[in-house]
Amino acid sequence: MSDIPLAPWRSPLARALHRNRSLVYARYVQLATVRSDGRPANRTVVFRGFLELTNQLKFIADTRSQKIDQIWVQPWGEVCWYFPKTREQFRLLGTLEAVAAEHPNHALLQARRNLWRELSDAARVQFAWAEPGIARSETVASETVAIEISPPDAAEPLPNFCLLLLNPTQVDHLELRGDPQNRYFYSKDSEAGREAWAVQTINP
Amino acid sequence: MSDIPLAPWRSPLARALHRNRSLVYARYVQLATVRSDGRPANRTVVFRGFLELTNQLKFIADTRSQKIDQIWVQPWGEVCWYFPKTREQFRLLGTLEAVAAEHPNHALLQARRNLWRELSDAARVQFAWAEPGIARSETVASETVAIEISPPDAAEPLPNFCLLLLNPTQVDHLELRGDPQNRYFYSKDSEAGREAWAVQTINP
Repeated sequence: MSDIPLAPWRSPLARALHRNRSLVYARYVQLATVRSDGRPANRTVVFRGFLELTNQLKFIADTRSQKIDQIWVQPWGEVCWYFPKTREQFRLLGTLEAVAAEHPNHALLQARRNLWRELSDAARVQFAWAEPGIARSETVASETVAIEISPPDAAEPLPNFCLLLLNPTQVDHLELRGDPQNRYFYSKDSEAGREAWAVQTINP
Repeated sequence: MSDIPLAPWRSPLARALHRNRSLVYARYVQLATVRSDGRPANRTVVFRGFLELTNQLKFIADTRSQKIDQIWVQPWGEVCWYFPKTREQFRLLGTLEAVAAEHPNHALLQARRNLWRELSDAARVQFAWAEPGIARSETVASETVAIEISPPDAAEPLPNFCLLLLNPTQVDHLELRGDPQNRYFYSKDSEAGREAWAVQTINP
């Protein structure tokens, strides 16, 4: 672990997560992407921790969902993360990568499998539901569907299960509690061979 | 009031607002826009109610902020609104309009002025702060700045104060509490002379 350069925004983010840990939804963030027609899309996703030995955030997604289609065209995403208790916001802009069943990287496939195993049955069963976003079949009562679908195998992910990674290149941290507020802007230095970050205090 | 066609998503949204009213941050939403380089941007904004006699959501913005620059190029925005208590999400996609000091519409200018008057001194003084997003001057201690800036005139908005309107054309309402979840998709019928909405139940 001593060898990995933790990005400098990791420590204020960890502090915010800790101070807001009593709120389950402090791990819910909003992920913005861009649709193929150039309009923005925005939805709530659950933060699933960091990919080991990296500064990449883990989320889960269904390969059948629109966000997966969108990042094929435009891989950039921005997460907006508001912490209600400490009244602070992190905006994390970066590239998104979907790790699906056929991904060539074995370490990432293993990370995908591990994340699937950590999920609850309730989270896993959602990947066995009917295709998201299309008209709901009216002939089947929703209750019936829920009873009929048994939880998928906990060991092996369903093929439409995706590990979704955000690799941030800019992080904007705003503390609303200051008077005036405090705002810090972190940017990744892409010129450096190793991951290097610059930080600047900016006006809120 | 009887003459105004309230969009059909207004009533579930009003119900969510009511049921989550004990949480001040249930009025905080995430607004996604698109940057001039085609990447998404996402930040938290405060819902300020609906513009009278319309289905347009009101927010406030600083003309010096990046979102105002962004909507000049790409006026589409998507609000993601998560309600923690009732575990439901509204995604509202629509066009954004900034109503600044020189806006030609007198009714909108009046709405801008009214909103300014409704703000707290703490909200108004933010528009007197230094330009947002640029490097903070290190020669002036932040405490000094806060003391020196007195609250602006409550009657007349500062020139950089903007009323920001979102005019939704699509609303996606997801109820996480169902098993399986319930999801409703509302879309505005642009062909109709009057504002008309279609609603469909879709897979979560």
